[in-house]
Amino acid sequence: MAEIAAIGADRTRGGYSRHVFDPAERELREWFTTSAERIGLDVDVDRNGNIWAWWGAPADGAVVTGSHLDSVPGGGAFDGPLGVASALAAVRRLRGEGCQPRKSIAVVAFAEEEGGRFGVPCLGSRLLTGAISPERALTLTDTDGTTFADAATKAGFDPGRFGKDDVALSRIGTFVELHVEQGRGLIDAGSPIAVGTGIDPHGRWRLSFTGRGDHAGTAAVADRNDPMIPAARTVLAARAAAGHGPRDTRATVGKLVPVPGGTNVIPARVDLWLDSRATATEATREAVTAITDAARAAANDEGCHVEVTEESWSGPVSFDARLRDRLRTMLNEPPLLPTGAGHDAGVLAAHVPTAMLYVRNPTGISHSPAEHAEDDDCEAGVDALAEVLREVSL
Amino acid sequence: MAEIAAIGADRTRGGYSRHVFDPAERELREWFTTSAERIGLDVDVDRNGNIWAWWGAPADGAVVTGSHLDSVPGGGAFDGPLGVASALAAVRRLRGEGCQPRKSIAVVAFAEEEGGRFGVPCLGSRLLTGAISPERALTLTDTDGTTFADAATKAGFDPGRFGKDDVALSRIGTFVELHVEQGRGLIDAGSPIAVGTGIDPHGRWRLSFTGRGDHAGTAAVADRNDPMIPAARTVLAARAAAGHGPRDTRATVGKLVPVPGGTNVIPARVDLWLDSRATATEATREAVTAITDAARAAANDEGCHVEVTEESWSGPVSFDARLRDRLRTMLNEPPLLPTGAGHDAGVLAAHVPTAMLYVRNPTGISHSPAEHAEDDDCEAGVDALAEVLREVSL
Repeated sequence: MAEIAAIGADRTRGGYSRHVFDPAERELREWFTTSAERIGLDVDVDRNGNIWAWWGAPADGAVVTGSHLDSVPGGGAFDGPLGVASALAAVRRLRGEGCQPRKSIAVVAFAEEEGGRFGVPCLGSRLLTGAISPERALTLTDTDGTTFADAATKAGFDPGRFGKDDVALSRIGTFVELHVEQGRGLIDAGSPIAVGTGIDPHGRWRLSFTGRGDHAGTAAVADRNDPMIPAARTVLAARAAAGHGPRDTRATVGKLVPVPGGTNVIPARVDLWLDSRATATEATREAVTAITDAARAAANDEGCHVEVTEESWSGPVSFDARLRDRLRTMLNEPPLLPTGAGHDAGVLAAHVPTAMLYVRNPTGISHSPAEHAEDDDCEAGVDALAEVLREVSL
Repeated sequence: MAEIAAIGADRTRGGYSRHVFDPAERELREWFTTSAERIGLDVDVDRNGNIWAWWGAPADGAVVTGSHLDSVPGGGAFDGPLGVASALAAVRRLRGEGCQPRKSIAVVAFAEEEGGRFGVPCLGSRLLTGAISPERALTLTDTDGTTFADAATKAGFDPGRFGKDDVALSRIGTFVELHVEQGRGLIDAGSPIAVGTGIDPHGRWRLSFTGRGDHAGTAAVADRNDPMIPAARTVLAARAAAGHGPRDTRATVGKLVPVPGGTNVIPARVDLWLDSRATATEATREAVTAITDAARAAANDEGCHVEVTEESWSGPVSFDARLRDRLRTMLNEPPLLPTGAGHDAGVLAAHVPTAMLYVRNPTGISHSPAEHAEDDDCEAGVDALAEVLREVSL
């Protein structure tokens, strides 16, 4: 973790901005490759931009662990890289101890887990498993208008080869992802690690409000169709649709872009992204319906139009119960933890036995420079992951 | 105007993005210099980044006309460049006709009139007249964090020489700015041109809401201090503080930036810019007080903090009555027009007799790609400006 502490540091926002195929993320890929080769692993990049480091021949049914290297804008140091670095550390320890696993073991770094650049989270694992079509993925654009296809090409990938990768998928016999805890679950439980139970259903919706751009000084208010007004009302509708309990419905607007975005300019368009999650699909969908209904009414009141696009949807995930119980037993019964945060493990869980290990976050804050994990807890995470790899690869 | 139609075209927002010292604006400066020299003028750049093209020796009491070359983000083709191009066309015509003005005539292009990059409008004319201190101007930053000092240095200017320029100011005997109309004034009046009466008081305020960044999926709503909530309430408070009549108080939020700005991230900060104008200072100030009071209450409700900064303030301007009446007489009594839009003429009016000519905008829309002026009306503008220069320079 210390080796990558300077890569992608964001001087404007604080924390880290490491987005798929940008210079920082490419530097992290090089670090991963070098680090894996240094401990004797064979590194291979798949057709969808995910990197694999193999201990033993790539073969069906391998034990795979890892996470991602990209971050949200201005994110913390641990979300993603902790799982990758812990995987490399666990493998190094097992190799140092002379462990001879019967199954091959691989460390993977999935591409664009946060969707921080192209909007769809877990893009690398979704492409690999066929959960998103390459046609849709390749035409996704970042805020500069660059397509995923162009960014991938520039990074040396062949966009024509993106898409479902049955060979890579069949090689995953078991997937275990270690991740920093993103809420207060392990503070409350008083434990350095936990085993995951599942992931709440969640999704992202883009609401594009269009009105009529004009001069902020000369256009009379009565003549305006200002999309900022329904956008603001939608932010408040999202808050109103959320519950207040620790596992109640969450609804968040974290990204809002007025176009053109001049101080003395009534926007012609405002794009707003809604993130909504609940413990059940129905509750999540109900909240989104309430919010988009409010958005349509607000747009109508202002003589504006709103277009709602579902950018991503992730149904509820329950991790493999047998694997979960096996992990709990071998790790001396750490607490079980559900989560509202999405992970590549959630995508893979539909295809292979999948488990997650969480490492305590003493601030309870994530997607922020305040995210943290103590060294001792990180060590406990590596201990646990090494134990899991040792047992599952027997 | 056709010569510059491709410069700074904004493919993302539509219209033009030409910001001080960016490649597009520097290309426009070169176009201005070349065009002025082609018609025999001597071009000179002052200490504050404004460009002057002289017909006759630079001398005290000259007749000066011109406008600006920069735009708002995604702005129209006419706001600024029409005044510069019309000035060059008027001078070319007078020279072609063998006119021999007694006073020197200059065409000026003022820097950063829109404040589109560094936030303070009329920056070039404010620096020249001492309406802003060089200390404050040089430390203004753009959205990338680049200071005005650094941008100016990169463009070949010496930041140490920015500031009040008494020599340049004393050379302006009379200033006449031609500008595209930015509302419906000339549509309603049924005239291609108008003479300006004055400019409404107006200003810009930055409201920085700070809360606590976190993960949109894991942080319970009850634990949140989400600055997007008070920002949205402030947008609605601005609308509530505005009046609906054609000359009533306007209050606009055209720029709003959540930081870090990730879809799955509760922002740590939201910066919002308020533009407010009314026909009188008191009404403008009253609206801003109501809005900032509402912002403080909303921030308090969410456990957030808000800091309010006045980025710029322009008091009410009445153009020189004698010059205005003289223009009306020589132009066959065109309509008189007040405006809610700021101009460099408003800054200069505090120092020298100043007038404005407006050219009809058939859409009534400005700061938008929809801004327009018909060729015939532009010709009428050049006719009027040439007539004014001929008479005033006698």
